[in-house]
Amino acid sequence: MKGLAATTLSLSMIISGATLAATTEARGGNEDSSREEKITMVSPALENYQRKTLEGDLWKRQALSARDRSVITVAAIIARNQVALMPAQFALALDNGVKPGELSEIITHLAFYSGWGNAAAAIDVARPLFRQRGITEKDLPVAHPELLPLNEKAEQLRVNAVEQSVGSAQFPGLVGYTTDVLFHDLWLRPALAPRDRSLVTVSALIAAGQVAQVTFHLNKAMDNGLTEAQASEVVTHLAFYVGWPNAMSAVPVVKDVFAKRT
Amino acid sequence: MKGLAATTLSLSMIISGATLAATTEARGGNEDSSREEKITMVSPALENYQRKTLEGDLWKRQALSARDRSVITVAAIIARNQVALMPAQFALALDNGVKPGELSEIITHLAFYSGWGNAAAAIDVARPLFRQRGITEKDLPVAHPELLPLNEKAEQLRVNAVEQSVGSAQFPGLVGYTTDVLFHDLWLRPALAPRDRSLVTVSALIAAGQVAQVTFHLNKAMDNGLTEAQASEVVTHLAFYVGWPNAMSAVPVVKDVFAKRT
Amino acid sequence: MKGLAATTLSLSMIISGATLAATTEARGGNEDSSREEKITMVSPALENYQRKTLEGDLWKRQALSARDRSVITVAAIIARNQVALMPAQFALALDNGVKPGELSEIITHLAFYSGWGNAAAAIDVARPLFRQRGITEKDLPVAHPELLPLNEKAEQLRVNAVEQSVGSAQFPGLVGYTTDVLFHDLWLRPALAPRDRSLVTVSALIAAGQVAQVTFHLNKAMDNGLTEAQASEVVTHLAFYVGWPNAMSAVPVVKDVFAKRT
Repeated sequence: MKGLAATTLSLSMIISGATLAATTEARGGNEDSSREEKITMVSPALENYQRKTLEGDLWKRQALSARDRSVITVAAIIARNQVALMPAQFALALDNGVKPGELSEIITHLAFYSGWGNAAAAIDVARPLFRQRGITEKDLPVAHPELLPLNEKAEQLRVNAVEQSVGSAQFPGLVGYTTDVLFHDLWLRPALAPRDRSLVTVSALIAAGQVAQVTFHLNKAMDNGLTEAQASEVVTHLAFYVGWPNAMSAVPVVKDVFAKRT
Repeated sequence: MKGLAATTLSLSMIISGATLAATTEARGGNEDSSREEKITMVSPALENYQRKTLEGDLWKRQALSARDRSVITVAAIIARNQVALMPAQFALALDNGVKPGELSEIITHLAFYSGWGNAAAAIDVARPLFRQRGITEKDLPVAHPELLPLNEKAEQLRVNAVEQSVGSAQFPGLVGYTTDVLFHDLWLRPALAPRDRSLVTVSALIAAGQVAQVTFHLNKAMDNGLTEAQASEVVTHLAFYVGWPNAMSAVPVVKDVFAKRT
Repeated sequence: MKGLAATTLSLSMIISGATLAATTEARGGNEDSSREEKITMVSPALENYQRKTLEGDLWKRQALSARDRSVITVAAIIARNQVALMPAQFALALDNGVKPGELSEIITHLAFYSGWGNAAAAIDVARPLFRQRGITEKDLPVAHPELLPLNEKAEQLRVNAVEQSVGSAQFPGLVGYTTDVLFHDLWLRPALAPRDRSLVTVSALIAAGQVAQVTFHLNKAMDNGLTEAQASEVVTHLAFYVGWPNAMSAVPVVKDVFAKRT
């Protein structure tokens, strides 16, 4: 049994240093400094960048609120299936004012935009966090809420565009689900504000290098109140979480959206 | 020891809710309903989509058999390294008539098309599943089977195309391995039907957003009997597992293949 | 407790067969043959490809040193978040002459080029390996070393190009961090030779399918001594770890770099 226990402990340390940190409520306390020590044991430089450049500078810039930064960080790491960062970032999101119901809805939204397996991994991380904070089903969005009203005119434009580019004759399943499940249901769920839902989608697209579809969703986010300065800062913030190359690849598309709106 | 045990149990719950479910044989039984409860604890909406839209609708559509759906789902989640979904989906694949030798061969194939690490993660999930179901080495494809006959004419076209686009003068290693290991060995292994091998490749390419190379492999799949309606349904099914943006990006390439074959 | 222990052991086997192997020093000994057996239990063919094609052939080709092969393999699996391969490949990298400080620096570098979460996952794997080999903070690059001299002329060209393509007016944050944190700090850290840092960047870009930015960094690597034959072999080697489609997509960009340098 001693050998087994040793194996198990080593497993814990290897797979989920971050997980253990997240299971304590004391953010900024002992566990956090222990997380920093754990990075220092491999890279004192990375620990320094995390503490000074990320926590001490990036997250404090005025261009985006801490809550918005959490929304886009959570979206990006779910889109990239970054299990190692999820426990600490999910906890931070709640601390930064993302409601449990909003985090629930972000995960649900990304099941469709990043794939079912990305949501499944996020569910496995959110569950113990919710339990620990006493968040139960009554705090979460129901399966069938009263939906937001459909913008009939914008929806007709979307339907026409998809009919032309995809076509229900050749792709009846894809076109049908896109309308029925995504745009007549998921996007109308009220637990996440339309502006935030677009922000989540844009972040997931940039995170996955799928910049072609940023145009549609960034315009939607800006129609719902995201400013140009905020959109620029979204790309800046994401650079650290999705890697510089994905951020740089998003720039021309974002600039093009800016240019066409002015 | 008590603290350690608690840590370990929490680890189990965090990392591998799905894994535990997969280690019971009772599909549809207690463990499955427990899996649903686990999703509900974070998102009642996602649980509802999974039960009604995926299990109750998508997987039952006539356009593709449940076995075909398992082949493409397994390929997609290996290509995306979706460890959280692997235990349940590998078990479901066997239940849906994918033979153990076929699952083995899909993993081997994807080592070359999605990368060695993707196959390694899948191996770690398939091993306990095979053990639990009493599947041993004698049920699996051997390393050196009698190979399928090479289509000399199609292979000469491929060799010429690669010589022109890559070139053995500048890329002797890549060109050599492509011929010797991939097209004179891997693709001729008999444990996976050529139509299924192409389907696995197409699914992995769509899953990774590598649509440029879908044309060659989708044509191969259709030469080997995949119909246009089935190919369309592959994209529909994959939308849920690889995310809508990847499915949408595949559409123009798939449409182009359809157009050029008629 | 017995039930729990059994669950835990099964978890260990599922998640981290490779991890356990990496926690023994006996490379090539009992644990290694056990790793081969573990692959054989799912795919005798894959075990054969790994032993004969990868270990017995690819890794022994003269075109690149074993150390270089470890540098690019480690970069590729961090860029793809391939946790399943990390323990064995990180250990192999140290055995092949990659210094602990270099491995530390590769992880730090990829935090910026592949995203913070990719580095976090690598940190969690490197930590127990470093501890086991007695590598401590004094063996690792400090947070603030004396930096390499800046090539003012090349930097001015880069600044101008970024100003034109991104622009500090619209993207003050991104442009500022790119200069201050990446090119005036990270790239000048002395613990990784400039040629190796470029090689790491190129490998990460090919691994993630981000070939547009290969041109700049491959030229930098070749300016710092990487030959054409070595660059070709990098693509060949990476094919196995990042999948054939990503390698094939890199070829036209690499050929174009070759053509414009002659």
